[in-house]
Amino acid sequence: MSDKIVKYTLNERDIPRYWYNVQADLPEPLPPPLHPMTGQPLTPPDLAPLFPMELIMQEVSTERWIEIPEEIIDVYRLWRPTTLFRARRLEKVLDTPAKIFYKYEGVSPPGSHKPNTSVAQAYYNKKEGITRIATETGAGQWGSALSFAGACFGLEIKVYMVRVSYDQKPYRRIMMEAWGANCVPSPSPDTNVGRRVLADDPDCPGSLGLAISEAVEDAMTRDDTHYSLGSVLNHVLLHNTINGLEAKVLMEEADAYPDIIIGCAGGGSNAAGLFLPFLKDKLDGTKPDLRVINVEPYSCPTLTKGPYAYDYGDSAKLAPIVKMYTLGHGYMPPPIHAGGLRYHGMAPLTCHLLKLGLVEAKAVHQLETFQAGITFARTEGILSAPETMHAIRAVIDEALACKESGEAKTILFNHSGHGHVDMHAYDAYLSGKLQDYEYPDALIKEALADLPKVG
Amino acid sequence: MSDKIVKYTLNERDIPRYWYNVQADLPEPLPPPLHPMTGQPLTPPDLAPLFPMELIMQEVSTERWIEIPEEIIDVYRLWRPTTLFRARRLEKVLDTPAKIFYKYEGVSPPGSHKPNTSVAQAYYNKKEGITRIATETGAGQWGSALSFAGACFGLEIKVYMVRVSYDQKPYRRIMMEAWGANCVPSPSPDTNVGRRVLADDPDCPGSLGLAISEAVEDAMTRDDTHYSLGSVLNHVLLHNTINGLEAKVLMEEADAYPDIIIGCAGGGSNAAGLFLPFLKDKLDGTKPDLRVINVEPYSCPTLTKGPYAYDYGDSAKLAPIVKMYTLGHGYMPPPIHAGGLRYHGMAPLTCHLLKLGLVEAKAVHQLETFQAGITFARTEGILSAPETMHAIRAVIDEALACKESGEAKTILFNHSGHGHVDMHAYDAYLSGKLQDYEYPDALIKEALADLPKVG
Repeated sequence: MSDKIVKYTLNERDIPRYWYNVQADLPEPLPPPLHPMTGQPLTPPDLAPLFPMELIMQEVSTERWIEIPEEIIDVYRLWRPTTLFRARRLEKVLDTPAKIFYKYEGVSPPGSHKPNTSVAQAYYNKKEGITRIATETGAGQWGSALSFAGACFGLEIKVYMVRVSYDQKPYRRIMMEAWGANCVPSPSPDTNVGRRVLADDPDCPGSLGLAISEAVEDAMTRDDTHYSLGSVLNHVLLHNTINGLEAKVLMEEADAYPDIIIGCAGGGSNAAGLFLPFLKDKLDGTKPDLRVINVEPYSCPTLTKGPYAYDYGDSAKLAPIVKMYTLGHGYMPPPIHAGGLRYHGMAPLTCHLLKLGLVEAKAVHQLETFQAGITFARTEGILSAPETMHAIRAVIDEALACKESGEAKTILFNHSGHGHVDMHAYDAYLSGKLQDYEYPDALIKEALADLPKVG
Repeated sequence: MSDKIVKYTLNERDIPRYWYNVQADLPEPLPPPLHPMTGQPLTPPDLAPLFPMELIMQEVSTERWIEIPEEIIDVYRLWRPTTLFRARRLEKVLDTPAKIFYKYEGVSPPGSHKPNTSVAQAYYNKKEGITRIATETGAGQWGSALSFAGACFGLEIKVYMVRVSYDQKPYRRIMMEAWGANCVPSPSPDTNVGRRVLADDPDCPGSLGLAISEAVEDAMTRDDTHYSLGSVLNHVLLHNTINGLEAKVLMEEADAYPDIIIGCAGGGSNAAGLFLPFLKDKLDGTKPDLRVINVEPYSCPTLTKGPYAYDYGDSAKLAPIVKMYTLGHGYMPPPIHAGGLRYHGMAPLTCHLLKLGLVEAKAVHQLETFQAGITFARTEGILSAPETMHAIRAVIDEALACKESGEAKTILFNHSGHGHVDMHAYDAYLSGKLQDYEYPDALIKEALADLPKVG
């Protein structure tokens, strides 16, 4: 049967024991991050109030392989290694000669790839004697993943959740509380930044940049507390490479190598987690033709429309200044359902690779992503998160291009999470209430006018 | 580390190829089901308007092993075999000498054990030329599982969803629609039964018994349509034995055999799916001391409070009359969140085994189930469905009894599904708004007054 489900699995003992650090293999190093106050290159001690030293060292390390502590592997075991599927039914309905593979990360307890790093971050903080972590979350994938990790290691977790999501999407907030975390809407009265914003506008809907500011302030003002970020940073991408390393072994088992790797990109970590271990082969010249596509929403077109510039990671200018494609730290994208893709910036590593021409980027509209998500649900059986649908859209487009050209390309994508908590978004689409947004030209121009004058 | 996560997995090639049919090993046969009109024993042709002949023959078969068609295995592959975990962290927090194992069924695309049978039922219907299946659903686990299976085999699915759930719990309804099914609130204007009820009471909240009546009428009045039930029937329990068969191999791998097997019981299929392959060892005398506990809600205490009597499967008396513990086909239990456990009857097989003293039953209150569910989330990391929390409650009680007695018993339970779509229930519990209900004595007495005079 041509539509037989084919999957490739690893044994538990084959969980990778090292993360892959692409900084060992870059043709030129990353531009340095800068101190938000001084504009001078950051030193590890500058970051000590926010992160445990092991994560700070991973952030700047050029060691190629970084050993995964046994305590982290112990928790990864709950859902790792994850499965590689060949999407035969999708191929059939598209009538494409392309071979489509996907790695499925939706089986983790919070339902996404995010615990690959939340578990690691919780562990290193615990090891350094930290008892409490503050973080921000948009739609709630990251907040719930860190809350899960906090429960695993007995840490107190405080989550500042963008208020519009807190009000409209309570399910993720409740998940955090079920794992024992404290989740408040941002802006909150719990920080100076939050209080200032609330004084100006008690009904402020919040933004990811603002929630980051609150979490960073929280961490900087309490000795027992560190800060944690769920994407963007080098160590976050590093932790997610466990997925790409598994995928590489499994693709070998499938006797295949990808011509194209695709992932959705908000902060960049799920896509990079899959593609970095393969990109190693492009960097060393073994696979010069490998294509990598980061897929972002047209409403938040960081990689496709933003300039490559130094910018703040947050709206209150408390987080480090990094070189990245950016839409401006004050940018507030339209309310698309893929809340995890609404960040103004992008992982400096992904941006650096794009600038060097080693990876690509593509922007897609909301409606076409849901169309792709429904096609996937009705062929492959899995209900995808709205973020993941961005990757699926690009996969289908590439597979249809193969149908045109007659090329039997091998496409691999990261299925970053299930959509069981996003059913309201499906409802809006299926009932015809979902919309696309105009390109937010004026908003982006305004936000870009406020880039820092550094670097 | 004593709290290290331990799991046991099977290779894909080790998916069982046969279901186990306990009817081959019963000390005495099941009382026969009766025709709802005549009160006479049902014959296979009586059921032909509702079910494909292969399922009808499975319903009455006394063959011990029934081969699983390759086409069903092909779909099972998407999430099977599932993992057996040792709940070391839970053991530690309970400070119990008991060893707690659980089989985790929440990784299927709809998030529960239900597709073990929905996929099989969709396949046999497809094979017989049926193009459309009608069914009912309470909270929506079953409706979404059959919708998923319909998408896998290209069948049209019509779901009659108990109206109070349709209105209050839209997520499962949207899941069904995402997979392409048509879901309507029951009572609906689409059937005679529904129209009659609506004429009397336009605001009727519906019940599972009524929704079954609508689905049965739909199937009986259309040539292209069959009916499908997600629990209770022998063939449904049969299909779920794939889980117990996997568990048996995995327990051997763990070098353990359960002293006690626990599952929540609404219609009975998830508990029986796990325990039947082990019960075989009790029936043949190999494991005479094996205990099996079916856990039900105190608000719907079918096994613990109902009489063992012939009763209709549905409120409109269209479905077969079967011998079971029952609270009366008109019983409407209080609105507990475990919607899947609100059925007035129970699988005749489970009831027969209870009557013979081969299995036990236990009723638990709602609040104590959520307390257990939160403990499980914060130790083992998995957010459980409210139905599953009933099993977890009983597991914790048994583990604490072991702590008292100092016995290191081995407890195995079925984790039937994740609770990502039940976050409103968690919210009610965590915010102190959840309640227990008085024992519904008067309601049960009233419903029992209407048992059929047969058998």
